[in-house]
Amino acid sequence: MPAKQKIAIIGVGLLGGSLALALKKQKGVELVGWNHRASSRKKASKIIRVAESFEKAVAGAQTIVLCAHSNSIIPELRQIRPLIAQGALVMDVSSVKGAVVQQAVRVPRASTYFVPCHPMAGKERSGPDNADADLYRKKIVFITPLPKTSWKLLGKAGLFWKKVGAIPVFTGSLAHDKAVAMTSHLPHLLASAMIDLYGRQEAKSPLFKKAVGSGFGDFTRIAAGSPAMWRDIVEMNSVEIKKSLSQYRRRLEELEAKLEKGKGRFWYDFFERARAVREKL
Amino acid sequence: MPAKQKIAIIGVGLLGGSLALALKKQKGVELVGWNHRASSRKKASKIIRVAESFEKAVAGAQTIVLCAHSNSIIPELRQIRPLIAQGALVMDVSSVKGAVVQQAVRVPRASTYFVPCHPMAGKERSGPDNADADLYRKKIVFITPLPKTSWKLLGKAGLFWKKVGAIPVFTGSLAHDKAVAMTSHLPHLLASAMIDLYGRQEAKSPLFKKAVGSGFGDFTRIAAGSPAMWRDIVEMNSVEIKKSLSQYRRRLEELEAKLEKGKGRFWYDFFERARAVREKL
Repeated sequence: MPAKQKIAIIGVGLLGGSLALALKKQKGVELVGWNHRASSRKKASKIIRVAESFEKAVAGAQTIVLCAHSNSIIPELRQIRPLIAQGALVMDVSSVKGAVVQQAVRVPRASTYFVPCHPMAGKERSGPDNADADLYRKKIVFITPLPKTSWKLLGKAGLFWKKVGAIPVFTGSLAHDKAVAMTSHLPHLLASAMIDLYGRQEAKSPLFKKAVGSGFGDFTRIAAGSPAMWRDIVEMNSVEIKKSLSQYRRRLEELEAKLEKGKGRFWYDFFERARAVREKL
Repeated sequence: MPAKQKIAIIGVGLLGGSLALALKKQKGVELVGWNHRASSRKKASKIIRVAESFEKAVAGAQTIVLCAHSNSIIPELRQIRPLIAQGALVMDVSSVKGAVVQQAVRVPRASTYFVPCHPMAGKERSGPDNADADLYRKKIVFITPLPKTSWKLLGKAGLFWKKVGAIPVFTGSLAHDKAVAMTSHLPHLLASAMIDLYGRQEAKSPLFKKAVGSGFGDFTRIAAGSPAMWRDIVEMNSVEIKKSLSQYRRRLEELEAKLEKGKGRFWYDFFERARAVREKL
């Protein structure tokens, strides 16, 4: 019988926990988890065997997945570097990739073991209690390699994600950050700004709360996400988010000018075009 | 056995059709529908008895519900005025109330039979094929009376909505328009603008489509609504929508200025406040 392949998940929250549940179904896998906080380790232990220490979690693991926010990836990488086994693959799952790649190239030999990843999977509710074995199923996972990484290592990373049902897509970290700035980071900021404005009005009149329908609920659902994670994302991808926001804000200025009588044709075309694009999502 | 109460639904689409399905369950009700287009009448006939003519649909009805867009309510009101029975109650279900009330007071004796209503119920998909007997269940229905309407007539309108499971809320038409401008019309416009921007980017690079997650889907779901209905809404509530949009756009300008390094504390507070308000929706 071949030795089991050890996979370490550092940070067993929603993403790490879901990964644990998906990997549990695979044969020949020895799964171990670690959280830096004792209270989080206790929660994690419901779904994964928690190691006795951080060092023991990492030691001898062929695959290590860092499930932390973008801000913490590089410090964690430096921390595990002396501990990792020869030939090991280290990945992360954080939302911003440009800054991670830029800093990782300065970590010794990082291109021989570290492959930055970003699965387009999540929920509003964080924590291992909300983990779901099917979270990654049919979801895109962006893989944004360091400049010198071998195709062999990238292939291993791609295979890892395929095994949990995801679809790996290789791309540059800046192209990634530009795309998610528009499809994820900007919408989050816009939904939060909407909720912010609504909160001020609702405090003045109870009518606003009554005027909330299911559409408003859908529109603002993403604003329920973790403030700490979103602070990190905004800090680390501020350049691309600012470009997107600025484009969007200028578009709103154009629309504002059209909000007067007799522009029916314009609005019909605008909504029709949007509807057509939305249908194809 | 008492005579059946005749209820006429003029415009059997999603809202009218759902009303029909909900009313069907009630005893002592004679339900009849009408659509102006022959093709729509054919669809409607699957869920409601369709009258032989518009006149026959309205004749003798104690309750008439006009399920048309805001723009068509007053023309329809003028059209049915000579036909309606003594003591009849006429309601609409359209999304903008200020303009409807303002114009209705000029229709002879309108305050004795017409009660403007707006149920906070809907779906992205229109048409009677998507009708749902439970669409109004536990949903707010705003009732915005004409200045001289009797409480007796308003009471009848309120009771009508309670019987299909809805929660009637009486308010002024301008307060209504202000509230829905923020909670419904502005979000629709913002989601459509987001989709519009996304569409332009996606046409340039296939990466944008891959970067679409469930959050983007939720955020833009409302943009799938009927362009004709939304054109009417924007035209008829342009003043209040413009006020909301302008407030929102100014807020975005403030946020844009904060998109630089070292503003982590600001963003944490911003997202935390938004999350707290979102939780209480």
